[in-house]
Amino acid sequence: MNDCFALRGNLIWSRAPRELAFVPNGYAVCEKGLCVGVFATLPEKYAGIRVEDCGDGLILPGLCDLHLHAPQYPNVGLGYDLELLEWLDKLAFREEARYADLAYAERAYDLFARDLLHSATTRACVFATTHTDATLLLMQKLEKTGLLTYVGRVNMDRNGPERLIEKSAAYAHNETETWIRRSLGEFTLTRPILTPRFAPSCTDALLDALGTLRRRYRLSVQSHLSETRAEVAWVRELFPAQPDYASVYDAFGLFGGETPTVMAHCIYLTEKEKEQIAQRGVFIAHCPASNANISSGIAPVREFLDRGLRVGLGSDVSGGHTLNLLREAALAVSVSKLLWRLQDGVRGPVTVDEALFLATRGGGAFFGKVGAFEPGYAFDAVVFDDVRLETARPLALRERLEKLLYLSDEREVRRKYVEGRRVL
Amino acid sequence: MNDCFALRGNLIWSRAPRELAFVPNGYAVCEKGLCVGVFATLPEKYAGIRVEDCGDGLILPGLCDLHLHAPQYPNVGLGYDLELLEWLDKLAFREEARYADLAYAERAYDLFARDLLHSATTRACVFATTHTDATLLLMQKLEKTGLLTYVGRVNMDRNGPERLIEKSAAYAHNETETWIRRSLGEFTLTRPILTPRFAPSCTDALLDALGTLRRRYRLSVQSHLSETRAEVAWVRELFPAQPDYASVYDAFGLFGGETPTVMAHCIYLTEKEKEQIAQRGVFIAHCPASNANISSGIAPVREFLDRGLRVGLGSDVSGGHTLNLLREAALAVSVSKLLWRLQDGVRGPVTVDEALFLATRGGGAFFGKVGAFEPGYAFDAVVFDDVRLETARPLALRERLEKLLYLSDEREVRRKYVEGRRVL
Repeated sequence: MNDCFALRGNLIWSRAPRELAFVPNGYAVCEKGLCVGVFATLPEKYAGIRVEDCGDGLILPGLCDLHLHAPQYPNVGLGYDLELLEWLDKLAFREEARYADLAYAERAYDLFARDLLHSATTRACVFATTHTDATLLLMQKLEKTGLLTYVGRVNMDRNGPERLIEKSAAYAHNETETWIRRSLGEFTLTRPILTPRFAPSCTDALLDALGTLRRRYRLSVQSHLSETRAEVAWVRELFPAQPDYASVYDAFGLFGGETPTVMAHCIYLTEKEKEQIAQRGVFIAHCPASNANISSGIAPVREFLDRGLRVGLGSDVSGGHTLNLLREAALAVSVSKLLWRLQDGVRGPVTVDEALFLATRGGGAFFGKVGAFEPGYAFDAVVFDDVRLETARPLALRERLEKLLYLSDEREVRRKYVEGRRVL
Repeated sequence: MNDCFALRGNLIWSRAPRELAFVPNGYAVCEKGLCVGVFATLPEKYAGIRVEDCGDGLILPGLCDLHLHAPQYPNVGLGYDLELLEWLDKLAFREEARYADLAYAERAYDLFARDLLHSATTRACVFATTHTDATLLLMQKLEKTGLLTYVGRVNMDRNGPERLIEKSAAYAHNETETWIRRSLGEFTLTRPILTPRFAPSCTDALLDALGTLRRRYRLSVQSHLSETRAEVAWVRELFPAQPDYASVYDAFGLFGGETPTVMAHCIYLTEKEKEQIAQRGVFIAHCPASNANISSGIAPVREFLDRGLRVGLGSDVSGGHTLNLLREAALAVSVSKLLWRLQDGVRGPVTVDEALFLATRGGGAFFGKVGAFEPGYAFDAVVFDDVRLETARPLALRERLEKLLYLSDEREVRRKYVEGRRVL
């Protein structure tokens, strides 16, 4: 029973989008990296295992960040008076170009990996840049954190600055394949994921090459979909043969199916695209901070949940300004209320319970059985000490959870476990 | 020149809503509590005065919080799945009733005063409760912080829980007058402000009594206006003699004029109410966090600014979840973008520059010449050390300011001055 232990504390997780489980002073038992269950008292069978006592702390499943751009981390908080396409030019691309310099990448990715480790996030889908070496450097640094991540060397062969775009689809294919092989060989926790930046950055030839690589290596895919109206109109111009934005990815075998695909934003989907997403089992990364910061809009997450689509949260650094996914969850609630109030009027907002679901189990499903303290789920856990948030009166466990969403930051994150390994 | 000194550091303030001043490594000179100017090098005339060197820190005018409820501070982050009227019943009123117990008030107001002192706020308009003793206790605690505040004993004589509402308008009149006299006698930094909770909580007789007290003591007024559609409809029912919500306050002499009035929210104003606000010089406290949290909507601040109305920011704790007024400023920018994107389509969003204006000079005008480093303005200043927000590359002063809005919290607040007195 050496690889068996229990965390003792106040356990909270989502059983379903609208159903939170609270087990005060309970035991979450881990065996070989998997959760075997949560118990009010430790069963006889586990007598004698190591118990890590988290005192009065709150224990949640590790949070899953489905969308973020590591190289843009220096830009968090900057340039939000611009909109997406101008912001890409003036902020994102300019910053990403710096990663041709490995010394810069070293400094920047050190800070990024440090802060991701200290956040409540245990798993993430991460965009790098078009630079193979800098992407591998980022992967090395993430591997060391012990977090579980997908990292994508970005592909783009048009509509970007000279310094960033790949010379040709053939070059991109070769370079990407080299990177895939190296990363599959070098890393165990840090997996490659195919990453066409977004349709407007890619020629048909590039998308076709990525479809081939996907099939060859059975890789997951991450990209952007329908973030702004201007972008949607642009995609229509660039791909006149395709009926809509989603179909661009789908036409090249980059839209769900055998391996998971995650698409960030999904604000201005057509009815047909929503059906396509449902059919293909594509994950939506909802990024409320980013969507507000660069004036994109509000994704109809209430509707996504009602339709049973697969949705999680993305910090979308640096369109989003924080790696704090609990704050992102609170913001998902807030913007859903504004959408309800300003436009929808009918469906109603997303609740706190649902937002926690999105941040854990909803996004966790992209990684497998992840995001809950239930038998067979990966044992990913975050322990919070919320004493800084104390008030004049004692708080119920549910109240403490609500405060955690709205008020906590990395100061509350005290321990983290990924597949049973303590990483913080 | 004993009461003369200078702060040296990177000075930033609003000259106008769309014009920020940046003076790197400058000197802001204070004489007798007033700013006498900002200088790139210290003028001959001031040679020999004490210089407080803030190193590479950022120095901003102290922030002015135009609207918050001190007794609700324990509730920050709680109950936001409810809307205003239900939230009032289940969260706000229930918490406020606890302040009949002075021991509870002691504990709760200690935490509130501590956190307000450590925030970037130097001045605030604060609601207390209907309890005279607890209100005076709050005022004592605020007086000790050195911050400059208006505090209001809340008036309400209907439509609230038995434990909170005042027995009669006559009782309210007497009790309020007693409180006014005591606070005018006991405090110098902490001033009484008339505080009808909001129109639905007040009978005509109570509003009439408050109008009388206002004239007698020349007091300022704070209340709520047009926060939700349901509330606006309710006011119409309750005050059939008045053409609109604003006119209810106006009819009783509680809407601008000789002494300042501040009204929180102002989301669903009619054109006539906007004109009335302009005419009477009423201040609007924009509370974007609160308005999102409890699903109220988004106030058209872009329009308010374009019309030249007097607008500042309010944290509206605990409808709002944070005392951090810089975060509130960032949120003012974000929600203005969502309003623009979802509904307006024309006017465009509020910028970072304007949001900083709202948090300083805009709200500062409620207190007099406050919120700028210009001759004759009160010397209120906050010094930030933003080293925690460092990135892989050096940042321009404007970039550091943007990061401060989106990312800083009380950890960055290192010193505070109010009218030249150091309070932190």
